[in-house]
Amino acid sequence: MADDKKKFLEVFQQLKDELVQAEKDDAQVAIAVDWIDKMVEYNVPHGKLNRGLAVVDGMRALNPAGVSDDQMHRAMVVGWCIEWLQAAFLVWDDIMDESVTRRGQPCWFRNPKVEMVAINDGLVLECQIYSMLKKHCKAHAGYAELLEMFHEITYKTASGQLLDLITAPIGEVDLSKYTEEAYMRIVTYKTAYYTFYLPAAAAMHLSGVTDPAAFAKANEICEKLGQFFQIQDDYLDCYGDPAVIGKIGTDIQDNKCGWLVVQALKRCSAEQRKIIEENYGKKDAECEKKIKELYVALDMEAVYLKYEEESYAELKGIMESQTVLPSELFGAMLAKIYKRQK
Amino acid sequence: MADDKKKFLEVFQQLKDELVQAEKDDAQVAIAVDWIDKMVEYNVPHGKLNRGLAVVDGMRALNPAGVSDDQMHRAMVVGWCIEWLQAAFLVWDDIMDESVTRRGQPCWFRNPKVEMVAINDGLVLECQIYSMLKKHCKAHAGYAELLEMFHEITYKTASGQLLDLITAPIGEVDLSKYTEEAYMRIVTYKTAYYTFYLPAAAAMHLSGVTDPAAFAKANEICEKLGQFFQIQDDYLDCYGDPAVIGKIGTDIQDNKCGWLVVQALKRCSAEQRKIIEENYGKKDAECEKKIKELYVALDMEAVYLKYEEESYAELKGIMESQTVLPSELFGAMLAKIYKRQK
Repeated sequence: MADDKKKFLEVFQQLKDELVQAEKDDAQVAIAVDWIDKMVEYNVPHGKLNRGLAVVDGMRALNPAGVSDDQMHRAMVVGWCIEWLQAAFLVWDDIMDESVTRRGQPCWFRNPKVEMVAINDGLVLECQIYSMLKKHCKAHAGYAELLEMFHEITYKTASGQLLDLITAPIGEVDLSKYTEEAYMRIVTYKTAYYTFYLPAAAAMHLSGVTDPAAFAKANEICEKLGQFFQIQDDYLDCYGDPAVIGKIGTDIQDNKCGWLVVQALKRCSAEQRKIIEENYGKKDAECEKKIKELYVALDMEAVYLKYEEESYAELKGIMESQTVLPSELFGAMLAKIYKRQK
Repeated sequence: MADDKKKFLEVFQQLKDELVQAEKDDAQVAIAVDWIDKMVEYNVPHGKLNRGLAVVDGMRALNPAGVSDDQMHRAMVVGWCIEWLQAAFLVWDDIMDESVTRRGQPCWFRNPKVEMVAINDGLVLECQIYSMLKKHCKAHAGYAELLEMFHEITYKTASGQLLDLITAPIGEVDLSKYTEEAYMRIVTYKTAYYTFYLPAAAAMHLSGVTDPAAFAKANEICEKLGQFFQIQDDYLDCYGDPAVIGKIGTDIQDNKCGWLVVQALKRCSAEQRKIIEENYGKKDAECEKKIKELYVALDMEAVYLKYEEESYAELKGIMESQTVLPSELFGAMLAKIYKRQK
């Protein structure tokens, strides 16, 4: 695993060098070449790299007889394309969410020379994906499918992001919009597809899988994995140990349409709903405390733990009962997130 | 021509309806379906539609024996894809340029419920291009080339936009960056490719042209057409009649790296350069007047008219001396812009 990560980071260096060299070969002006170099370095490689490395894991799961160096390199390139897509989303999202820091450094647009140029940088990052895919995957039989998949999942993610933004606009509380339907849609579209389905399906395309039933099954499992992952995230934001997670949860004060508030709204009395109306989404520690007390009164922790067990059992069941794909393709993903504390 | 525009607008209605229906079929939440419908209507169809209609004109130029209804419909879809791309760029650019109005209405992000959600809307518009191309062009032999062309030209445009943004950041004057090299690069990349080359090359792909030499020639001609068009634009911003153009030029006060200031910097004395340094890019009518007086002293109008004649002759020469493409593919474009006053 550590070896995978080392090789994966070497491929990043190669890809970035190629993109910078292509700008030079195309006679780009020096200040812009320099900007692209720094912008890519700042935004792409400093995350956990789980999405990119999941393509590598997926290749091994799908090719028990072994993965050639060539195949592995191509898988790493596609893994980086997913990290590049993630970087574009984060650059844009941080502006829209008014975020301050990201991966331990100021959000890209917070740099004084960057500001709104970051909008165009997000587009540059997205465009580089197709340049890398063309260079490294055009000769592969799954190239057309890879392109369409990146298009479709980018669109799905953008449409989930749209719903998230208009469901809970910054500074505006309208609890009638916090339905389970909207919540599940946001989670699935904004996160599950590019985080779980995209790496798994990319490994499938690169391994020569073409059976639509296999992709449909992967889609079904990855949607549920993504929902499970995000619901955990929402739970940990409120109940996790800040010392372990590395941050203090802000969902209540930030007016997030999170799993806990959606479930609380389903279970509360008219009186309790009033408490939520008056205290949710306020930048005030006292208000936050009142919401947390209400969660205790509604025993939301038990509601979550019940969901976690049921959902885990359901996922295991679907994974083990299907025969179109090796269960290891998803087992590693599930093992990484089940009972996680951060 | 009026008939083309009418049919073209009918195809817009069809495309928008299909996109909205696809959201409904995919069980999108109603508030997001509604948003997408309004956002597309607000941003896509209200321009001059020159880029989209150029695909239609190009089809006729390339198929003297006639264009079938099917072919024409496909050409109009691809024409709209170019208008969609333009819409995405404008939505993003207006935020970055701090613009106020666009096509006679407030810039999309200036609407109180929109603001920074517009960043994501730009991405939604871009993603819709690939959804429309898949639906209407997947069966066509030129599909893969169309996809790669949209990718590449989006990337080129973004890299031109990047150079523009960092060459003349809002509120900062650094004349050493206003070189002819940077200017020509910005103009060609930010405007020429998607405005001239993309419609021409799209019509070529849709007409079954595959000869790389033909695309190289189209590229060479369209680069020059785009430069010619943009230099006119810069000239008209300063010398055009506001009553004819429909707006009052602001390039001098806005610190734009325009053709006139780049040429003036090449021709001025040390003393005159000081005048530019002290007055260019200031939101002050007196400063603007001093720059315009300097342009008179340097006889910039004559410099421009000389350029226009030489450039027009050069373009005509290239178009007429080549034999790989019908000259009508470009003749209509050139006729539309030569000696234009708005």
